[in-house]
Amino acid sequence: MSARTTGQVRVVGTGLLGTSIGLGLSSLAVDVVLDDVSPATLALAVDYGAGRPTKPADAPALVVVAVPPDVTADVVAAELARYPEALVTDVASVKAGPLAALEAAGAATDRYLGGHPMAGRERGGPIAGRADLFLGRPWVITPHAGSRPEHAAVLEALALDLGAVPVRLAADRHDDAVAVVSHAPQLVSSLLAARLVDAPDHATDLAGQGLRDTTRIAASDPTLWVEILSANAARILPILTDLRDDLDAVLDALADPSARGARRALADVLAAGNDGVARIPGKHGVDLRTTTMVVLVDDRPGQIARLLTEIGELGVNLEDMRLEHSPGAPIGIVEIAVAPEVAGGLEADLRGRGWRIA
Amino acid sequence: MSARTTGQVRVVGTGLLGTSIGLGLSSLAVDVVLDDVSPATLALAVDYGAGRPTKPADAPALVVVAVPPDVTADVVAAELARYPEALVTDVASVKAGPLAALEAAGAATDRYLGGHPMAGRERGGPIAGRADLFLGRPWVITPHAGSRPEHAAVLEALALDLGAVPVRLAADRHDDAVAVVSHAPQLVSSLLAARLVDAPDHATDLAGQGLRDTTRIAASDPTLWVEILSANAARILPILTDLRDDLDAVLDALADPSARGARRALADVLAAGNDGVARIPGKHGVDLRTTTMVVLVDDRPGQIARLLTEIGELGVNLEDMRLEHSPGAPIGIVEIAVAPEVAGGLEADLRGRGWRIA
Repeated sequence: MSARTTGQVRVVGTGLLGTSIGLGLSSLAVDVVLDDVSPATLALAVDYGAGRPTKPADAPALVVVAVPPDVTADVVAAELARYPEALVTDVASVKAGPLAALEAAGAATDRYLGGHPMAGRERGGPIAGRADLFLGRPWVITPHAGSRPEHAAVLEALALDLGAVPVRLAADRHDDAVAVVSHAPQLVSSLLAARLVDAPDHATDLAGQGLRDTTRIAASDPTLWVEILSANAARILPILTDLRDDLDAVLDALADPSARGARRALADVLAAGNDGVARIPGKHGVDLRTTTMVVLVDDRPGQIARLLTEIGELGVNLEDMRLEHSPGAPIGIVEIAVAPEVAGGLEADLRGRGWRIA
Repeated sequence: MSARTTGQVRVVGTGLLGTSIGLGLSSLAVDVVLDDVSPATLALAVDYGAGRPTKPADAPALVVVAVPPDVTADVVAAELARYPEALVTDVASVKAGPLAALEAAGAATDRYLGGHPMAGRERGGPIAGRADLFLGRPWVITPHAGSRPEHAAVLEALALDLGAVPVRLAADRHDDAVAVVSHAPQLVSSLLAARLVDAPDHATDLAGQGLRDTTRIAASDPTLWVEILSANAARILPILTDLRDDLDAVLDALADPSARGARRALADVLAAGNDGVARIPGKHGVDLRTTTMVVLVDDRPGQIARLLTEIGELGVNLEDMRLEHSPGAPIGIVEIAVAPEVAGGLEADLRGRGWRIA
């Protein structure tokens, strides 16, 4: 595969994202030069193959600023000044603030175009970097009044080179979107998981898949998330304020569940939750309805593989799949989702092959 | 397989749980007789093979009351009176209330022993019933001061016959446990998902796995959950009140994120979330640590099967597995969890076979 990206690319900040970008582009033979405030971090990224250190004579066509959100605007401004011919982008997970700061500072924002690759890992630093970190993930590009269409094409080429899916969205709309689909869920998951800290063992021993799913992202890195949440606080606040209002109604209902209207208040919240889930699109970014079926397998090596092999032999593509946990049980429950038009035939075929289907 | 359960079993209420119990026991040749306030529902359960209708001469050794929580105590009392030799149990997902009601009513609670099979489906009714609904799930048995040890053994035999994992827990402790591991998460997930109702399409289009996981159980049936939440309201209330207090601290921090202490307030909630997640035990009901790795596969039939076949060939048992969604992407990301002692070897073996591992 040859790169769509042309010219030299300079990556400033060789943490997880910067190193991953360097690794991905270097694997396509793009000329990548690196920089970092920490010489040790820079040296590590170079050792990992993310690129070479920047030299004074380098003249990048594209600068990717991959530093923490709170210093993104300052570093972008410095890069715009240092390389007067280059397009400068960033990867911060909030976008309106840095743009406003650059405009206020009189930076050359006609050469700035923000980006947000929606990828990450629990671990950070260059050691966690990987060339395929962005595979299949949205890479939001945020055009603004002063940006140039040809620059959006450059960032789209970058995103595609790294296997990501480019999405154009104004900075305000991006920040509104991530507040509701990412930042509020993070805080709510953390608030829920915090309830387990003092829960007795006999309670956590009964934890099922519902609890695991609702609290999974509560394992995320607090330091990084404090930055993100602080930077987008104004957009998260109204969402969680609305949630608090609904929560207050729930608390009132729980305080006197036999009062007139109490059950209705609970039902309203539960029904609104149903409606909200229905808004989440399917796997391929469209509202693809899938049909789910549950298959029971023995909990030993090869059983799930055999199931999926047979599904593959039947020519059916899985849209989703999930293993369910069962404390102490020798049985695995595999929930698979397939396109509705093939579900009936698949179920019959699998039953015919002896699978137990719920 | 022959049944551990001896004697006739009467199931009252042939909805999802009652029909599933009938199907499971009938498949083991246990003599199952059924009853339901709805003749149509009863006839359907009989047609499905869950048992036969009760006759006046029947003399069950065990009565399983599988009716909605709000009428459980009344039906249990009636069954205790109707069958003076029988052990009567129930399957309601709250346990202290029915026991207290029975004691207050002067029922023969020495022959009542409550139970809670922790299984369910999105759909209800006899048509959704299945013999293996309880496979691998905890079946909580709630001994009380007046109950008999030999009766707990009867219910344990019932649970084992249906493939469930019996767990003994006093009713109060059970209700405290499900408040924190099931009921509070249900409400929090619904409250979060409700935020999506008015979210714009460009926001929901960016939905990732974190949002999907945190809101999955918000798709549950409101009617059933209003019953459950109302019946355990007093135990859910303090948990969600604590959550509201933490949420208020978050809202204060978001309202002025540059104020002294604001970042600390956010970090405290995020760190408590980390600690809470760490309390959730692993797959087999013990705190089994697993090692996770991410494998990249092409999104076409047979790829995941091939991966799992090879893992099976290597003799490695999956502890957990998850497909990650990527809107518009032709790449699937498979996260697998295995025992730590085999993880290193597995990763090397899979790389050697050409798999891309993050």
